[in-house]
Amino acid sequence: MAVRLSSCSLSSSTSYLAPYNLSHHGNLATRVCFSCDYVDHGRTNQSRRFALKASIVQPLNAVSLHADTVVHTPAAEHVEIPAKEGYIPFFDSDTEESTLSIIVIGASGDLARKKIFPALFALFYEDRLPENFTIIGYARTIMTSEELRNIISTTLTCRIDKRENCDEKMDQFLKRCFYHSGQYSSEEHFFELDRKLKEKEAGRQSNRLFYLAIPPNMFVDVVRCARRRASSEDGWTRVIVEKPFGRDLESSRELTRELRQYLSEDQIFRIDHHLGEELVENLLVLRFSNLVFGPLWSRNYIRNVQFIFSEDSGTEGRGRYFDNYGIIRDIMQNHLLQILALFAMETPVSLDAEDIRNEKVKVLRSMKPVKLEDVVVGQYKGCCEGDTSYPGYTDDPSVSDDSLTPTFTAATLFVNNARWDGVPFLMIAGKALQSKRAEIRVQFKHVPGNLYNKKFGTDLGQATNELVIRVQPDEAIYLKINNKVPGLGMRLDRSDLNLLFKARYPRESPDAYERLVLDAIEGERRSFIRSDELDAAWEIFTPLLKEMEKKKIAPELYTYGSSGPVGVHYLAAKHNVRYEDYC
Amino acid sequence: MAVRLSSCSLSSSTSYLAPYNLSHHGNLATRVCFSCDYVDHGRTNQSRRFALKASIVQPLNAVSLHADTVVHTPAAEHVEIPAKEGYIPFFDSDTEESTLSIIVIGASGDLARKKIFPALFALFYEDRLPENFTIIGYARTIMTSEELRNIISTTLTCRIDKRENCDEKMDQFLKRCFYHSGQYSSEEHFFELDRKLKEKEAGRQSNRLFYLAIPPNMFVDVVRCARRRASSEDGWTRVIVEKPFGRDLESSRELTRELRQYLSEDQIFRIDHHLGEELVENLLVLRFSNLVFGPLWSRNYIRNVQFIFSEDSGTEGRGRYFDNYGIIRDIMQNHLLQILALFAMETPVSLDAEDIRNEKVKVLRSMKPVKLEDVVVGQYKGCCEGDTSYPGYTDDPSVSDDSLTPTFTAATLFVNNARWDGVPFLMIAGKALQSKRAEIRVQFKHVPGNLYNKKFGTDLGQATNELVIRVQPDEAIYLKINNKVPGLGMRLDRSDLNLLFKARYPRESPDAYERLVLDAIEGERRSFIRSDELDAAWEIFTPLLKEMEKKKIAPELYTYGSSGPVGVHYLAAKHNVRYEDYC
Repeated sequence: MAVRLSSCSLSSSTSYLAPYNLSHHGNLATRVCFSCDYVDHGRTNQSRRFALKASIVQPLNAVSLHADTVVHTPAAEHVEIPAKEGYIPFFDSDTEESTLSIIVIGASGDLARKKIFPALFALFYEDRLPENFTIIGYARTIMTSEELRNIISTTLTCRIDKRENCDEKMDQFLKRCFYHSGQYSSEEHFFELDRKLKEKEAGRQSNRLFYLAIPPNMFVDVVRCARRRASSEDGWTRVIVEKPFGRDLESSRELTRELRQYLSEDQIFRIDHHLGEELVENLLVLRFSNLVFGPLWSRNYIRNVQFIFSEDSGTEGRGRYFDNYGIIRDIMQNHLLQILALFAMETPVSLDAEDIRNEKVKVLRSMKPVKLEDVVVGQYKGCCEGDTSYPGYTDDPSVSDDSLTPTFTAATLFVNNARWDGVPFLMIAGKALQSKRAEIRVQFKHVPGNLYNKKFGTDLGQATNELVIRVQPDEAIYLKINNKVPGLGMRLDRSDLNLLFKARYPRESPDAYERLVLDAIEGERRSFIRSDELDAAWEIFTPLLKEMEKKKIAPELYTYGSSGPVGVHYLAAKHNVRYEDYC
Repeated sequence: MAVRLSSCSLSSSTSYLAPYNLSHHGNLATRVCFSCDYVDHGRTNQSRRFALKASIVQPLNAVSLHADTVVHTPAAEHVEIPAKEGYIPFFDSDTEESTLSIIVIGASGDLARKKIFPALFALFYEDRLPENFTIIGYARTIMTSEELRNIISTTLTCRIDKRENCDEKMDQFLKRCFYHSGQYSSEEHFFELDRKLKEKEAGRQSNRLFYLAIPPNMFVDVVRCARRRASSEDGWTRVIVEKPFGRDLESSRELTRELRQYLSEDQIFRIDHHLGEELVENLLVLRFSNLVFGPLWSRNYIRNVQFIFSEDSGTEGRGRYFDNYGIIRDIMQNHLLQILALFAMETPVSLDAEDIRNEKVKVLRSMKPVKLEDVVVGQYKGCCEGDTSYPGYTDDPSVSDDSLTPTFTAATLFVNNARWDGVPFLMIAGKALQSKRAEIRVQFKHVPGNLYNKKFGTDLGQATNELVIRVQPDEAIYLKINNKVPGLGMRLDRSDLNLLFKARYPRESPDAYERLVLDAIEGERRSFIRSDELDAAWEIFTPLLKEMEKKKIAPELYTYGSSGPVGVHYLAAKHNVRYEDYC
């Protein structure tokens, strides 16, 4: 049940050791980072190169030299990971040496056009891509590179309008974009792709990143073809895949097993774009670099934690996809559970990806499967408001009229470890609600023996402290505290100690995709989901999903644009949680 | 050494018990408060009245029915406190029943004109004075009531300009103001005052509040005359006195002993107007009604606490007074030490004045006298800036050229109890500094095993959390936390979780005098200094003051408008404190 990850072993040559030492003890001021990575040993398995990659703001501790890291990966138990020669990939100090090719599979689709190409351009604009890079769009549609450029140029924007040279930069970027038409299951077409890539690489060392912007049923075919015909021969090959990763524990394990026939765990970058959001990134900084939160972060002081993800739009246009998954698979089992794990985990040994993911897995494995009685499901119905009418979920022609797929779910989860035993974690996710918001709310306990209890009226729940980490609509952190209202007499009020990021950092934040693509290029795995995490996450929700399907649990209907099914308040009340359905 | 305060005993008549029960178990929504008080038994000692006082926002728990409260009052050991009959003073439900007379002794002085009359008017404007009240100015100057009204009308303002009926209200107020000329030591003149008061009281029950806005060498004379000739016969008599309360432990005890010849402890209201400031009032609310601060509030998490009181003006016009006292007596021994006690005290049994004062005394008694080596003293010298020149302290004609009186002092104090052992409390007070600010800064410890240490450069002191409670220039509470700067990469920053009162509560706060006078009228003693507190406070500073005088310690000279003597940083460094001399 446990796989021993091979370490990134260093050669005995002292020249190889130098950057390692430098990375741990070198000049902090320059913040140069050396990233150590596995080689995909490719077809020839002959190249033994030493390479060094430097980036300006990448954390020093991104060096991952884990010898003997034992990771629990039940899904991968029968997959043999070949031992590899360690090496450190290199570009920057001699940019002539290596190339980066980014192959966007499914280049003509929505995700590629709306998210991936704009993110790549933003990275290019910010000089975060290496000197030698090529972007190749791959899809079944037959078109020319020029046609691809025309398509993607419509979605590129310079994040902040006033920036200079935007058009010029766009032109430079588009010149590096090419298109290659092919089938997703044709090894021959991937062999052609490989030829084209080699042409662009011009004999330099080759690193290749495949972004699979295609439905999951094509993942394995593409990975097989890419592995066999279009892998890098002398650098790394990595594959970014997007959810859904299966529909349940079994199908997820099957997908992992199939991917692992062609890729090692380290080559797979399972993206959850919400993990690339600023405040999620900030969660660990908040927790682990501020003394004031440390002692409070447990069952001793925290009454409950709420993870809220509400959207103000329905499934418009995505009904067919969504109806096969539902909100639990779409949002809870991945996004919210990942954030819960980051919230609840113990302090990791270091900020290295494997250390953080090890701690996250421990949280997930400490959780019992969600019980049906701790869940409220809802589905939105159409409604009219003045002249505008909003369609119900089953009004979508691609959704059957008797669909029981939940578009709203509230669930109470528990982490059965020393830190969190008995603390309800309330997850709420829904579509077509009154507001668009994503936030973590930490409600603290009552003050024992509160001298001011008489000042708070009958609802003492309103008098407790609350820490809110808000991702949407405006990124903010605020702590609700009680204070005296200025004036004669003693009237208490709950005010916010507030940090609104928009006000403090007026510059726009990078898009989550931008950050995650850069992480994949740099080999930073912290924000990607490891197979054992995925497995543990499915174990929590799969029994519930099966029971719901078996019992045909009917969702509570709620009106489009409302605050969701009222049942959520009764679920909250059952666990002594106070949930407020407004921002 | 201990005096047993007589309890406010209730009569066996059941009608007396009713309001007591109501106050503890009654309707919370109306926030009616019943205050129980001692009677000054006056000359006749015959009246046994039952009275009930209600105010709108007064805390319910202001009921003080302390049986057998044992208070350590060394200064008062030979003073016998006569046992009194308890009663509950009454006005409001039958406003014809009682009257309030406020006698401002020293009515022609600066304090009266600038602070006391405006505060009284503000209370009148806000309908906080009882229906039947009279204000009598008393001073040696010979003038008419009309002349007094002319003087005080120049300083009355409606706090917020746009308010309605301000002129009308002023007229109504001035009609209730009278003047009585007399010597401060003449019992005869006070007898005349009594006659005038009785005339205004017109046979109703009489409550009398004497405000001693005169130099302390006249306190005892006035108190003697007032006690013998102008005390209330059937209500209460209270006396508000302002610092200085002596120059050292002995003279303070002597003053207390003399006052106590004529007044009981409960009749003396020692005012420290800084204790009436909003954020000082708020300190207890913050501490005791917010769970998040509770676990942090000790030596386990707090590295040091700073109490900073800096003024941007010199002693202009007050040189003669100041030179006799110096900054330690003027600011530290009272204001800052009181705030320290409120900051550091254990949770009181209740919010009753005696419970809070009992806890404050325990803090003061846990402190060792300040040592000379833990003190830095400074004196400002003149300076020029462009065409403007600022006078040095000794440039004041009423200050001798070789004065050693400190206008700046920094001192490190320790509270030797279980909660605070080893935590330096750094007090800083100074005149003629670069900025006007008053704040409490709580610096937290480093995060143990901080994963992000590498991000903070060499000065880890800058990376710790800090809670700032700012009284001036703008009232605010903010908590400095570390967060990630939005953007690619991982750069940390220290931002503020901020509550700026001006932004949240745009209405102007009442002046400290207003609040304190109202407290004295209502018998709320929480913000006044009890004699044992005063005593304990003097014990902390008296040895230092004596040693400084004996050794003729020369203050370090600093420039008017500068950040004070540089020695403060070395004192701070000695105790591992980081003091920042800017806002």
